[in-house]
Amino acid sequence: MRIVLLLALLLASTPFFAQSNDEKQIKAIYDKALTDGKAYEWLNYLSNQIGGRLSGSVQAQEAVEYTKEELDALGLDRVWLQPVMVPKWVRGTPEFAYIETKPGLTTNVPICALGGSVSTPDGGLKANIIEVQGIEDLEKLGKDKIAGKIVFYNRPMEQTLVNTFAAYSNCVDQRYSGAAEAAKYGASGVIVRSMNLRLDDYPHTGSMGYGDTPIKNRIPAAAISTKGAELLSTTLKLNPNIKFYFRQNCKQLEDVQSYNVIGEITGSTNPKEVMVVGGHLDSWDLGDGSHDDGAGCVQSMDVLRLLKETGYKPKRTLRVVLFMNEENGLRGGNKYAEVAQTNGENHVFALESDSGGFTPRGFSFDCSDENFEQVLSWKGLFEPYLIHLFEKGHSGADIGPMKNESIVLAGLVPDSQRYFDHHHAENDTFEHVNKRELQLGAATMASLIYLMDKYGTVPSQKIKG
Amino acid sequence: MRIVLLLALLLASTPFFAQSNDEKQIKAIYDKALTDGKAYEWLNYLSNQIGGRLSGSVQAQEAVEYTKEELDALGLDRVWLQPVMVPKWVRGTPEFAYIETKPGLTTNVPICALGGSVSTPDGGLKANIIEVQGIEDLEKLGKDKIAGKIVFYNRPMEQTLVNTFAAYSNCVDQRYSGAAEAAKYGASGVIVRSMNLRLDDYPHTGSMGYGDTPIKNRIPAAAISTKGAELLSTTLKLNPNIKFYFRQNCKQLEDVQSYNVIGEITGSTNPKEVMVVGGHLDSWDLGDGSHDDGAGCVQSMDVLRLLKETGYKPKRTLRVVLFMNEENGLRGGNKYAEVAQTNGENHVFALESDSGGFTPRGFSFDCSDENFEQVLSWKGLFEPYLIHLFEKGHSGADIGPMKNESIVLAGLVPDSQRYFDHHHAENDTFEHVNKRELQLGAATMASLIYLMDKYGTVPSQKIKG
Repeated sequence: MRIVLLLALLLASTPFFAQSNDEKQIKAIYDKALTDGKAYEWLNYLSNQIGGRLSGSVQAQEAVEYTKEELDALGLDRVWLQPVMVPKWVRGTPEFAYIETKPGLTTNVPICALGGSVSTPDGGLKANIIEVQGIEDLEKLGKDKIAGKIVFYNRPMEQTLVNTFAAYSNCVDQRYSGAAEAAKYGASGVIVRSMNLRLDDYPHTGSMGYGDTPIKNRIPAAAISTKGAELLSTTLKLNPNIKFYFRQNCKQLEDVQSYNVIGEITGSTNPKEVMVVGGHLDSWDLGDGSHDDGAGCVQSMDVLRLLKETGYKPKRTLRVVLFMNEENGLRGGNKYAEVAQTNGENHVFALESDSGGFTPRGFSFDCSDENFEQVLSWKGLFEPYLIHLFEKGHSGADIGPMKNESIVLAGLVPDSQRYFDHHHAENDTFEHVNKRELQLGAATMASLIYLMDKYGTVPSQKIKG
Repeated sequence: MRIVLLLALLLASTPFFAQSNDEKQIKAIYDKALTDGKAYEWLNYLSNQIGGRLSGSVQAQEAVEYTKEELDALGLDRVWLQPVMVPKWVRGTPEFAYIETKPGLTTNVPICALGGSVSTPDGGLKANIIEVQGIEDLEKLGKDKIAGKIVFYNRPMEQTLVNTFAAYSNCVDQRYSGAAEAAKYGASGVIVRSMNLRLDDYPHTGSMGYGDTPIKNRIPAAAISTKGAELLSTTLKLNPNIKFYFRQNCKQLEDVQSYNVIGEITGSTNPKEVMVVGGHLDSWDLGDGSHDDGAGCVQSMDVLRLLKETGYKPKRTLRVVLFMNEENGLRGGNKYAEVAQTNGENHVFALESDSGGFTPRGFSFDCSDENFEQVLSWKGLFEPYLIHLFEKGHSGADIGPMKNESIVLAGLVPDSQRYFDHHHAENDTFEHVNKRELQLGAATMASLIYLMDKYGTVPSQKIKG
């Protein structure tokens, strides 16, 4: 009985002391991030000196060089570029569109080409336009009512979803597959309501794909601002015979050479277990990509720096990976996973930040129940920093290709209310990022990396045990 | 044994069914707030058509009339104005200040008079300036080093405090009492670093008081922007003999008549138990008072509207109170409590929103342990809306005067990272409020009011039981 009691006391006291050290280390990370973080300064350069970084652009290459230099300056154990071929799509001259209620009576509306779209014919495309609430409406309407027309996808994001990413998921099929689907019914083009919960004048771009649509059948696709979409819808209700005109001369060019940027602190005791923290370095071209995903890149860079500067020596190998081409190809994420597999690297944990630089609220985990339980046991350590949300769900696009049975994948979950006000639009710019919110995100990520490194993921503990 | 089991099952099942209805009602509130809320529309008018609403100003009176009209239009049981005399302080012509490194060599810096300050002498005040980190430094320096000089209070808000209100609390004594304390050492004026966590060019005003300083000894006090403070501090390090010049012609006038604006839904079964939800209608004059505290007013108005529109009939009397003069006098809050006491009204719950219109995170409660435990039992109902923070602490300035042993006082806790970027400054304006964040706050408040009304506060339950 006494031994049992002693054992119970011992077990009870171990977490107490362990937690106390954890509390100290985590406090040191947050304090450093809030008083001497570098994420915001790096983002300022990336956003204001380089700007939008579409894959294959000069700016994307500048971003590769800049971030490599900055990682070099941190004194990590190893910094390198991982070659990856990326698609190069160019927007061309500014897009132009109007609603024509009768010949000569036109109202301009703000549009932008969707990434990957073909151009309109020279001189633009003018046609009748038909509004639908989604791809499923096409079949109901049939070829007769669609052929030759422009299809206008106008299903809005649902305001009632508190998690705005859920609202995005429920709408994005219109943007991604709308053109390929409408082409099957002989449509001449598609206009898609911007994925934005706010009514404003910014069109929001984003990737689209033609699937197996033959090249000759590919039709141009553009996003219209939410206010433009409301105007177009109202105008169509008054007169279904109005015409819509749009012009864009975007183009898909040959793939070009680009790079993932990688920096590493080699593990002190378990160097063969690799943990990744990252974001994607490419962005759309309309804004400067501050929230999507400059924020995730500079936070990830700061994670290694914060751990280093607070004197923590990772047991496992810790890598920051700035992935190229998340937006229109995911080539960087796929390449990283492929090389890791080829080299037989054992990745145990990967954390991505790709949901904006807003106040962090928690993490979303894609992992086994055992690992999720371990994570939940750390919840209390995050509460002083108002990090409450630990849920199972999506992690991040770039780290997704690494998924297997044992790896723990996670995504930082920042407050999402304002994210889609800026996402893929001209107003995704530096002045919409708050320094403290950004740095809190970096500290939250660094704290999770610290715990994962210190305690290991569940399979690795079992192997050790 | 069987009866005990049955009882246990019954007890276990009651919360289940009750919670299910609660879940539905709360979902209805959030859905309505996010799709058909009115807070944002009201705030647009209050901010953009009326503007800053300093106590005693024409705009404050316009705000009284506008909000009364809007409450009238909601079809409440009773809407009225509660007279209260308020102080009237006027800023006068724009303030002006410069650092003089040598005669003829000056650099302008942005300042604003603190609310309640006296003016400088005609033509302004020019004197040597001495930097301190707080009131406690005055005694160390002594009269010799201070007399005739301007005292520059430059203790910054602490970046490491995740709750920015804690950082504010730790600094605000410089602003409120800095002049009264410096006057004791013969200072000729005070300049206070703005209560802002960001480096920018906005001076932030706010209330100050002279305590028992005789009128002839009162010295002018102004806030300097954080960038201005950094420049002044650096310049002083290079040369402690520089001079500082500032000019302001603000003035305290006679008290004027004003009003709290009150609307009420009379309780259906317990009308003598009163629950208050409110914010303060006055604001500082530099911006338009959108976050402080237009947001709290329109959210509180929407609370009554959301409950009404979702078909909920309060058991208890529910009042929205838009308090006048929180910023420089608290006369409205004091008057409301005084009248309530005179009339022998039984106030059981009061909720204030006065921390900005940002994403709601939870509530801070000033109440008995028993009531706090009850509140904690509702936590799960708020989790789908990402409301996680239920803590004991400060509620709100305006409802504070109602405090007694039995009342439950609460304050909405929104995300605080950006609040002090705008607080009391020219950039506290409508475009810095996000519609969804504001409406989520209104829904969160309405949900708590609903639960408090339905289940009652603990003492009232005991009385009933």
